[in-house]
Amino acid sequence: MNPLEKPSHRISKRALSETARFGGTQKGGICRLALSKEDKQVRDWLSREGEKLLCTVSIDSMGNQFLRYPGLDDSLPPLVMGSHLDTQPTGGKYDGIYGVLAGLAVIRALRANECKTRHAIEVVNWTNEEGARFSPAMISSGVFSGVFDQQAAYKICDRNNVSIKDALEETGYLGPIPCGQHPVRAYFELHIEQGPVLENEKKTIGVVTGVQGMRRYIISIRGQAAHAGTTPMALRCDAMLTAAHLTVLATDIARKHGDEAKATVGEITALPGSSNVVCGDVTMTLDLRHPDDEIVESMEAAFYQQAASVSEMTKTQMQIERTWNSPSVQFDEECVSLVRNCAEEMQLTHRDIISGAGHDAAYLARICPTAMIFIPCRDGLSHNEAEHAEPEDIVAGANLLLETILKADACFDLT
Amino acid sequence: MNPLEKPSHRISKRALSETARFGGTQKGGICRLALSKEDKQVRDWLSREGEKLLCTVSIDSMGNQFLRYPGLDDSLPPLVMGSHLDTQPTGGKYDGIYGVLAGLAVIRALRANECKTRHAIEVVNWTNEEGARFSPAMISSGVFSGVFDQQAAYKICDRNNVSIKDALEETGYLGPIPCGQHPVRAYFELHIEQGPVLENEKKTIGVVTGVQGMRRYIISIRGQAAHAGTTPMALRCDAMLTAAHLTVLATDIARKHGDEAKATVGEITALPGSSNVVCGDVTMTLDLRHPDDEIVESMEAAFYQQAASVSEMTKTQMQIERTWNSPSVQFDEECVSLVRNCAEEMQLTHRDIISGAGHDAAYLARICPTAMIFIPCRDGLSHNEAEHAEPEDIVAGANLLLETILKADACFDLT
Repeated sequence: MNPLEKPSHRISKRALSETARFGGTQKGGICRLALSKEDKQVRDWLSREGEKLLCTVSIDSMGNQFLRYPGLDDSLPPLVMGSHLDTQPTGGKYDGIYGVLAGLAVIRALRANECKTRHAIEVVNWTNEEGARFSPAMISSGVFSGVFDQQAAYKICDRNNVSIKDALEETGYLGPIPCGQHPVRAYFELHIEQGPVLENEKKTIGVVTGVQGMRRYIISIRGQAAHAGTTPMALRCDAMLTAAHLTVLATDIARKHGDEAKATVGEITALPGSSNVVCGDVTMTLDLRHPDDEIVESMEAAFYQQAASVSEMTKTQMQIERTWNSPSVQFDEECVSLVRNCAEEMQLTHRDIISGAGHDAAYLARICPTAMIFIPCRDGLSHNEAEHAEPEDIVAGANLLLETILKADACFDLT
Repeated sequence: MNPLEKPSHRISKRALSETARFGGTQKGGICRLALSKEDKQVRDWLSREGEKLLCTVSIDSMGNQFLRYPGLDDSLPPLVMGSHLDTQPTGGKYDGIYGVLAGLAVIRALRANECKTRHAIEVVNWTNEEGARFSPAMISSGVFSGVFDQQAAYKICDRNNVSIKDALEETGYLGPIPCGQHPVRAYFELHIEQGPVLENEKKTIGVVTGVQGMRRYIISIRGQAAHAGTTPMALRCDAMLTAAHLTVLATDIARKHGDEAKATVGEITALPGSSNVVCGDVTMTLDLRHPDDEIVESMEAAFYQQAASVSEMTKTQMQIERTWNSPSVQFDEECVSLVRNCAEEMQLTHRDIISGAGHDAAYLARICPTAMIFIPCRDGLSHNEAEHAEPEDIVAGANLLLETILKADACFDLT
């Protein structure tokens, strides 16, 4: 018998009914910006749920919420599960909250089965993971992990000039515990994949081994606006054509760097923007990613070199500005093995996977053993009101989280 | 002696001082929308200039203005020179008005030299050539030539819902002569090139042999918006990449169809437009041109066929809608020869050229022998406040127009 089957079954229902009302949109998604009224409502709900499960609830100075199921040995630091409750303005029902609700279900199952663990088991809700209200994303796990300075983070304001500190105070989530002083033995984050790989390969579980390296650029191309009817092709300095060649080039470079390399041109603005005028100015973005930082470096070098030739060929001037550089993260081998072995034992179809998106776990990995578990999401769609995960995958992920926590509890810190 | 040297020298001064005040912009350009207060001012000015030169001034039912220098034989239809006085919102000092002012200078020279011509010589100002206030462009020469219906044209409104008919009445330019009943023996239009060919080849005169064929398209590409970090290249349906391939494809097709073929992607809108999201939707324009309609047809066919392969390769859906089809125009061989021979005799450097842009002459060519003369403009720049033509080219063009008119007058209609 799997003693936890029933409790984890309830996760999808909770996600879809109980918590989805906090910021629920007409299209079935969620708008729950960090430290908004709706975010406060779901936080309050989470605390009440924790208290119902006889957990100790604590809040730190960045508003991170910890629900603690006590262990047999209070001298051991806790095993922590979690993610975030905030969403994008037109976010879905699963991103973030699934990891928190699964953690809650794990504690509920432990409680229902009167299961005693050596370590305390905790659920955490990290403040402002999305970065949709306060930029950058993952601010609070970043402060927790020493990546960001708390005083600087406090001063970050939303579009209405409300600072994080003001929002924390206003919602009552400016907690007394200094952010980062909460001990963590290991951190496990369960999340929807936000990509199509698992669905495409019909795997239930992604054993996340790390987060890929990411670099982002703004490319400015200056050509010469000219009459489309009177300017011979040979005399043009066409910024649009340059942009087109660069987009194809970036794609080719990614393809030459293997299946895990990605290059994306997501934004373009072309001026003057008239059907009978050759474009004089284009601004476009480029996003390069690969799990191996050396390959990201190689992609960047190839792009810089070949882009210069493109710009020379099209007689346009080009500037490439690197606006973001996030090195890759390798998760803890032992934690990743635990996840993989548990999935194997539970006969869940699985594959190792690299996270293409950022997550709180990427910062936690800097200060404690960390791993992540992915489940599939429909059409790889995320940050979208139509975001969907299948109930059986939701249950499988939560059950795997439970097994992983139990294995970690059993094998960690044996003296 | 060239008896007309002095009068035509005055054209550039007039263009830059007398008329440029009607709608003059701070950046040295002109904003003189059709039938605006400024357009009325310059029209009134033109009528007064005509009257000073003892011309008969008449206005037709589309507001087209004719200034008539009478001929010796009133039974002969007039030789007409002209262009338009309206401009783009940030237009230049030369586009259109140069052809009208040169016509005025020709009459002034004839008058100053007491030169009698067999034909009456007329200057015309066509209403709303630019199409900047009332769309489409060249409405009134179009009605004059039977391309557009006058009643339909009257109902066309600007953005403030003012109809052409209302604007004609309000400015006092709803004339009594039915548009199109004014006879024209031949029409000669002098214009800046609006392209870089003459400047690039250091030629003073372009002998315009026709107007190229033009087709315009809106291309809609639907892919699948997806996370730039989590979606492998192989699983993407990237509308931006499709657009890039199509832009390169259109350029390649134009280049394969010879020096006179042109393909332009001038506008692009890419959604959702985020640096870390693969584009789901792109709308872009395509403009194809060539002097030979068969080649335009061949370019279109090649594009349709190869674009389908691109869209299949990128797993996106594509719709191509042809929004405009303007067949090429061949100007009258005799009129073109007159221009070429006069340029040769006057020892002006010249070359035959096809107009890449539309002009009133393209419609006039349907109903009477027509030719155009181009002079260079700096950097091929037009529809721009920085538009510039050199004084010596301005004079050369006007002198060539005079010589051509005199030759036409001498050789046409000899019974």
